[in-house]
Amino acid sequence: MNIAILGFGTVGQGVYRILDERRAVLEEQSGEKIFVRKILVRDTQKKRGDFSTGLLPLTESFNDILADESIDVVFEVMSDKAKGIEYSRQLLAQSKHVISANKAAIAAAFFELQDTAEKAGVHLRFEASVAGGIPLIDPLSKIRHLNAVTGLRGIINGSTNYILSELSNERPHKEVMSEAKTLGVLEEDPTDDVEGYDARRKIAILAAIVLAQEIEGKNIPTIGITGLAEEDFLWAKSENRTLKLIASLAQDDSSYQLSVLPTALTASNPLAGVGGVKNQIQMTGDTIGSLAFYGSGGGMYPTAHALWADYLEVIGSKPAYYYKGSSKKEDLSLSREAEFYLRNPEEGLVTVKKISVKDALAFRNQGFVTIELE
Amino acid sequence: MNIAILGFGTVGQGVYRILDERRAVLEEQSGEKIFVRKILVRDTQKKRGDFSTGLLPLTESFNDILADESIDVVFEVMSDKAKGIEYSRQLLAQSKHVISANKAAIAAAFFELQDTAEKAGVHLRFEASVAGGIPLIDPLSKIRHLNAVTGLRGIINGSTNYILSELSNERPHKEVMSEAKTLGVLEEDPTDDVEGYDARRKIAILAAIVLAQEIEGKNIPTIGITGLAEEDFLWAKSENRTLKLIASLAQDDSSYQLSVLPTALTASNPLAGVGGVKNQIQMTGDTIGSLAFYGSGGGMYPTAHALWADYLEVIGSKPAYYYKGSSKKEDLSLSREAEFYLRNPEEGLVTVKKISVKDALAFRNQGFVTIELE
Repeated sequence: MNIAILGFGTVGQGVYRILDERRAVLEEQSGEKIFVRKILVRDTQKKRGDFSTGLLPLTESFNDILADESIDVVFEVMSDKAKGIEYSRQLLAQSKHVISANKAAIAAAFFELQDTAEKAGVHLRFEASVAGGIPLIDPLSKIRHLNAVTGLRGIINGSTNYILSELSNERPHKEVMSEAKTLGVLEEDPTDDVEGYDARRKIAILAAIVLAQEIEGKNIPTIGITGLAEEDFLWAKSENRTLKLIASLAQDDSSYQLSVLPTALTASNPLAGVGGVKNQIQMTGDTIGSLAFYGSGGGMYPTAHALWADYLEVIGSKPAYYYKGSSKKEDLSLSREAEFYLRNPEEGLVTVKKISVKDALAFRNQGFVTIELE
Repeated sequence: MNIAILGFGTVGQGVYRILDERRAVLEEQSGEKIFVRKILVRDTQKKRGDFSTGLLPLTESFNDILADESIDVVFEVMSDKAKGIEYSRQLLAQSKHVISANKAAIAAAFFELQDTAEKAGVHLRFEASVAGGIPLIDPLSKIRHLNAVTGLRGIINGSTNYILSELSNERPHKEVMSEAKTLGVLEEDPTDDVEGYDARRKIAILAAIVLAQEIEGKNIPTIGITGLAEEDFLWAKSENRTLKLIASLAQDDSSYQLSVLPTALTASNPLAGVGGVKNQIQMTGDTIGSLAFYGSGGGMYPTAHALWADYLEVIGSKPAYYYKGSSKKEDLSLSREAEFYLRNPEEGLVTVKKISVKDALAFRNQGFVTIELE
């Protein structure tokens, strides 16, 4: 079995390391040897941790990989959306299985890439794109057939959960942010995480699966955690609540509601106890009842674990695809009503009132700190 | 696709109902119509809930099913161990896929049935045998290839968890037990649940997967919940602890430790918050880190959901089997040491001390109430 890896950052290196450490069992399952034929990087000369770079089959040319007919499976672990879509499309069309951790690409071209994969009869898998190491997409691929999934919500961004957990311990904002970067919890440019865009992509992927229709990320009401200040955490504490960034999907027969919002959870909510970089997703289906999955939402090994779990599916199962349903549900995300905490940062005045998500976004745009209560 | 169901109690009826309710999607996934050809029951004349019995293809003859070459997949939802093993063996040998919820049969003949299935090239699946509706066996089948699973523990018997949850609310023992029977949470003969035998079978199945070696249920130190009295719950409350029946597996390179014990959990333990008939399983692997799965551990729909999830694997994936490993780990279950609460029911005296599990069992055999502290 010949594989290629697109990208050799943390996750790509994790893919390589797991193969190194568990080669015997992976080859036994494959029924053949596994070779890493090529690794796509931007600069083959760059030093890469403790790897002896000379021994790695690095290339700067995507076409090297695309044109290599011996390559069966490609691990796509880049973060660039446009390149992710374009490379996956081309690889799938060349009948190569694609296993992706690139949530931006998967979220943006969900059904299109499914379609390309199906035409070529190959696998497109993306367990690693949501909730890192937690087995979620694979169970959900079956659960959706056996249930009307009415709700799906949780903590699906580990970086912001780490920050919120630390800030809840009354640590200074600056210290926590710089520590998060040092630990690798936050990227150098943390915008995608702290503005909620990463969580938005992930809930968009889950929603596309559950709703079987195209979901545009930009239509999902999203507020990040950047506005939250010490006084908001003190307020939450005084109310015996915990601040978390919650991504949520609810649906009924004709409509759905999506959001990514800072949320003040009561102490009895199991999500309130999810600390550090962990993720937890709750799900409700009419047949299965309520479910929850907890685990590492990211990091080198857990994410690479999800990619290799997909590999085991590639070698062990028939490719399956997600289709758009015949009817389209109405997007009622903005008209959903909930209690919101609103703090006017100029006057410091706090109001709690029931408003629509649309109004909550308007308050946020005026500079208010805006937190859903639950 | 022609199927048969062995047993038509709660779970068997759930299998039938889910097919009825989700026939369109199940047939779409199968690429063909699905027919229930035969249902094995002890008495075809018995009334069965709101089913119009005349319309059900009931039979009292197992050979009717075994000899029917048109039957591809058999759902084995009996509870009899010996019959479960024997029927599954014969069906597998006749190249019929078997999807089982019969934990007694699977636990007792784990590798033997794998072997029979492999010889015939058919699926033997048993997601429903542990933790009902929670997707657990299927993720674990991949996780074991990618990790050294060092720990696996949790609440895997919903009936006792219901009873313990109610008793923790200071409700009278008798009332709770009779209510549990009325609600169908407990069988008429509750021995298997309350003595911990059901949990023991389930942890034995999980251990066989993780350790890749034969596990004899009777070798697993097991104490049920029958001895627990009001004063034990009051003690737990005074210590801010919650009493749960915890099944546990730990392993290192050369040995393993298994147990099923009433355990007094501290409030910070996520398992302490699992109420009612719910189950939760925690797992630790060297690659994936810590994981937890929460959901319905039993009941008609969740269990039948797990059986149909297995069906989706039968039609979508290559059969895979579990093998015994080449080396055998030592069973150190009895020598594990832990803090135990010991109450002498005659004198009412309570001691808490660190002893071996072996000694804990000896205290229990002398009539002491024996609870592990964690």
